[in-house]
Amino acid sequence: MVAEIICVGTELLLGQILNTNSQYLAQKLAELGIDLYFQTTVGDNMERLKMAIDIATKRSDILIFTGGLGPTSDDITKEAVADYFGLALVLDEDVLRRIEKFFERRQVKMPEINKKQAYVPKGAKVLHNKNGTAPGLIIEKDGKIAILLPGPPFEMQPMFEEGVLPYLEKFSKQKIYSRVLKFVGIGESSIEEALKDLILSQTDPTMALYAKPFEVELRITTKKESEECAKSLLQSMENRIRERLGEYIYGVDRQLLEEVVIGLLAEKKLKVSVAESCTGGLICNKLTNVPGASEVFDRGFIVYSNEAKMKLLGVPEQVLKEHGAVSSQTARYMAQGALSNSLADIALSVTGIAGPGGGSETKPVGLVYIGIATKDYSESFEFRFSGDRLRIKEMTSKAALNILRKKIIDY
Amino acid sequence: MVAEIICVGTELLLGQILNTNSQYLAQKLAELGIDLYFQTTVGDNMERLKMAIDIATKRSDILIFTGGLGPTSDDITKEAVADYFGLALVLDEDVLRRIEKFFERRQVKMPEINKKQAYVPKGAKVLHNKNGTAPGLIIEKDGKIAILLPGPPFEMQPMFEEGVLPYLEKFSKQKIYSRVLKFVGIGESSIEEALKDLILSQTDPTMALYAKPFEVELRITTKKESEECAKSLLQSMENRIRERLGEYIYGVDRQLLEEVVIGLLAEKKLKVSVAESCTGGLICNKLTNVPGASEVFDRGFIVYSNEAKMKLLGVPEQVLKEHGAVSSQTARYMAQGALSNSLADIALSVTGIAGPGGGSETKPVGLVYIGIATKDYSESFEFRFSGDRLRIKEMTSKAALNILRKKIIDY
Repeated sequence: MVAEIICVGTELLLGQILNTNSQYLAQKLAELGIDLYFQTTVGDNMERLKMAIDIATKRSDILIFTGGLGPTSDDITKEAVADYFGLALVLDEDVLRRIEKFFERRQVKMPEINKKQAYVPKGAKVLHNKNGTAPGLIIEKDGKIAILLPGPPFEMQPMFEEGVLPYLEKFSKQKIYSRVLKFVGIGESSIEEALKDLILSQTDPTMALYAKPFEVELRITTKKESEECAKSLLQSMENRIRERLGEYIYGVDRQLLEEVVIGLLAEKKLKVSVAESCTGGLICNKLTNVPGASEVFDRGFIVYSNEAKMKLLGVPEQVLKEHGAVSSQTARYMAQGALSNSLADIALSVTGIAGPGGGSETKPVGLVYIGIATKDYSESFEFRFSGDRLRIKEMTSKAALNILRKKIIDY
Repeated sequence: MVAEIICVGTELLLGQILNTNSQYLAQKLAELGIDLYFQTTVGDNMERLKMAIDIATKRSDILIFTGGLGPTSDDITKEAVADYFGLALVLDEDVLRRIEKFFERRQVKMPEINKKQAYVPKGAKVLHNKNGTAPGLIIEKDGKIAILLPGPPFEMQPMFEEGVLPYLEKFSKQKIYSRVLKFVGIGESSIEEALKDLILSQTDPTMALYAKPFEVELRITTKKESEECAKSLLQSMENRIRERLGEYIYGVDRQLLEEVVIGLLAEKKLKVSVAESCTGGLICNKLTNVPGASEVFDRGFIVYSNEAKMKLLGVPEQVLKEHGAVSSQTARYMAQGALSNSLADIALSVTGIAGPGGGSETKPVGLVYIGIATKDYSESFEFRFSGDRLRIKEMTSKAALNILRKKIIDY
């Protein structure tokens, strides 16, 4: 069985709202192991909606619609589908009562236009709507299945989980299982080169790479009837990849780099302090996004001005004059200063030129130094990033968190 | 001219990533007044991608593709389009040099597989990629236009604005003009009540409200052939709204609260310092996202621990013991300390409970105090927010920046 998602709404075509329904439904179908080859978005227009239905029925078995079930005259999904499949719309008294009750609970009289929502294509299964007035519908006709869901995610999602998921499970044989390995400090192409033989020769599990700023995700996916069998297959592929590139893998699935760092600090009972110039608080912000950060994150110094670098961290004026604020030397002094002016066991620092201004021939925009210090050690690293201000901040924060991660592991 | 968006990527069909490109492109086309009737998403599969191209060319004039321009073997958009239109792929030496330079800047040798990205369909116009290696392409063939853009938004968006927008402008007739008024410190329903008569009676311009965390946007929209006529219509509606609610409007269009704050500081030649506890760097990060922040942002203190509040800001131990770290008193001392330990003219502070842990009956998760200090003045404000950790941090940062904004205006 092949499914297709059809999102209906002129507001989507005007870019007024972000289509999160497609992703939600796609994820659910993937978990069910039901193939999805196309997603279509079309406006509140009868002719074009019917064109989309016609194309979809020719290439897919299950059509999942969202949107266009409201009470107003431009809501036409139900009408279009009923007409396409030659089904009459009949008043469903039970649905009507539910809509009336929905308004009663809010102490409002049901507007006359909402009665339209109680008409149901003959023979359709009705899905009740906990959070709104539009019922969902499941229609089986001519070997095809049409599932109509409301557009607002808070109405659509509970309806899907309670009414559609149990219905679709009978079409699901092999579910999809996947594992994401998250790499940092190595590029997409280098990973592909190192794993070329595995990626090319593998048909089960399959592997795919996704590049993100200063990190890469590798997704290993298999389709299996048994969870146990899937998990052991994924694990054995993960092991083979870790043998080659384990040092670059910081986490799995939905783990964030900052979560891994906070977890490692907690595990080793270490505290960290951070001194930021060009990232301006981004690293501290990421670390403190993680619940429980207060146990291991001691403090941060956002030292934008030279005066702040001297006063809060004790960077010598001589160093700033001789080497500049953006230099390997300043980065080391900043890390040492963040360590000695805090209760931390390990300190991280960054200084660089985030742009758009402030660059020069010898020190261009994107030049960044990252320092790290523990009681008896300090070091700094040079990076050259490209992109706009926010991207340089983002890449710098990832590079810095990775240096911190490696240092904690070796601590 | 009718456009169609085709997003290519199996990761979209598996729901692994959210499709924000569709919304971005739809918005841009709407602004240009170019009709968009369909959006299609298809996987990295040659046969189905060609099927999508075939359908789209039959009903649309301009096909805009995103994704599938990467260096790996499953990136096939360029190959599919070239093949569909019968165009050979030829090596473009200029593009190749740019890709090589991209790697040189990162001090990495170009992997052999990236050479694939330098092949261009014969006769295509090349769009250079500032933030990646995949060039964009504009192909005109048989009365149709195909525009190929990379998938990652940070590569696609600048390429669209610099290369595609000027190209598409010649197909645009009645453009959509809109103005967004950005409100802070007032809720959506209160705005709706205050403007009810205007919102209900207006058909041109139209108005729509969008609620966001701790702010609300009001979009005023009109479709006109003349820019002058549209602008005067929007301006007169804006004036009417400002008469009623001007004090809550912090900015217009894409202005961010932090940009307005940095602008006001620069205008009044003032410097700010920030002391953050529960927001953990978010406010400093936002302020330093704004180019030129270094002129007016002096420093930040991320004082997660009590010891840091005492040592860096001089909050008296007695105050922390008696009133607690999350208290009106501590917020005021933090602001005063941030002022006296910096070169700033004005200082902002926040302390609160972001959760999920750390709350109590008397001090629940979401309780936040925001302090502000100038040389001869200090004050603090209590807020009670709800939501998860990230949402509480976000709402706190907005509330704090708004307090800072108002104080700078009155300075």
